Amino acid sequence: MDRYTVAPIGILHCDIRTRDEAPYNYTDSREKGVIEIFGKYTAGLEGMKVGDDILVLFWFHKSRRNVIRVHPRGDRRRKIRGVFTTRCSERPNPVAASRLKVTGLRGNKISVAHVDAVDGTPVLDIKKYR
Amino acid sequence: MDRYTVAPIGILHCDIRTRDEAPYNYTDSREKGVIEIFGKYTAGLEGMKVGDDILVLFWFHKSRRNVIRVHPRGDRRRKIRGVFTTRCSERPNPVAASRLKVTGLRGNKISVAHVDAVDGTPVLDIKKYR
Repeated sequence: MDRYTVAPIGILHCDIRTRDEAPYNYTDSREKGVIEIFGKYTAGLEGMKVGDDILVLFWFHKSRRNVIRVHPRGDRRRKIRGVFTTRCSERPNPVAASRLKVTGLRGNKISVAHVDAVDGTPVLDIKKYR
Repeated sequence: MDRYTVAPIGILHCDIRTRDEAPYNYTDSREKGVIEIFGKYTAGLEGMKVGDDILVLFWFHKSRRNVIRVHPRGDRRRKIRGVFTTRCSERPNPVAASRLKVTGLRGNKISVAHVDAVDGTPVLDIKKYR
């Protein structure tokens, strides 16, 4: 089947420097960060408001892509299972989906809460959360 | 910034033949379908069960990618807004995120309910829904 190319629309800035420091999921996270949207995409933010819940698709550029079965949360006491039944960051197409809260907006910068990705992670898309 | 390549892990089979026939969102959909996972990725389904809610990332291969501002749901009476505040299928990286219900499992085929994509849509990823 065909392959497709994705181009980041922005980048995450935050204090999480390594994957070991990252929370396992946004549901566990108290980290804040700023998503910087690249110039040509900035009009895509029109109408966004502080307080909105957004679904952010990240490209986990540091993840291995050859992982098909995992111990959930890396816990070897837990039974191994297929990666498509988990939220593991390592998977054939390492696109992460995080529900974040918009806490501020200024030009092309979105301040967000509940960050679960490392500083410098590329952003592929933002959607209204539902 | 770098570009990245995605390779489909599977494909959607369903009765929705054209984008005009597709529901606007999985939340509106009574359509059923079957996701066929390609052979090398089938072990990634291990542990999936009938009744599971899954988040499926589709690649909307028929979508335009140069859309930045839209009328929500194509309704020109609604105020135009940035694509990143909507679930519009047309966006710079046309990755759709749908919550589907697993209604059957057989080998590499997952029967799903609430389908909102057209027959033949590539699947990039499946995650546990939360």
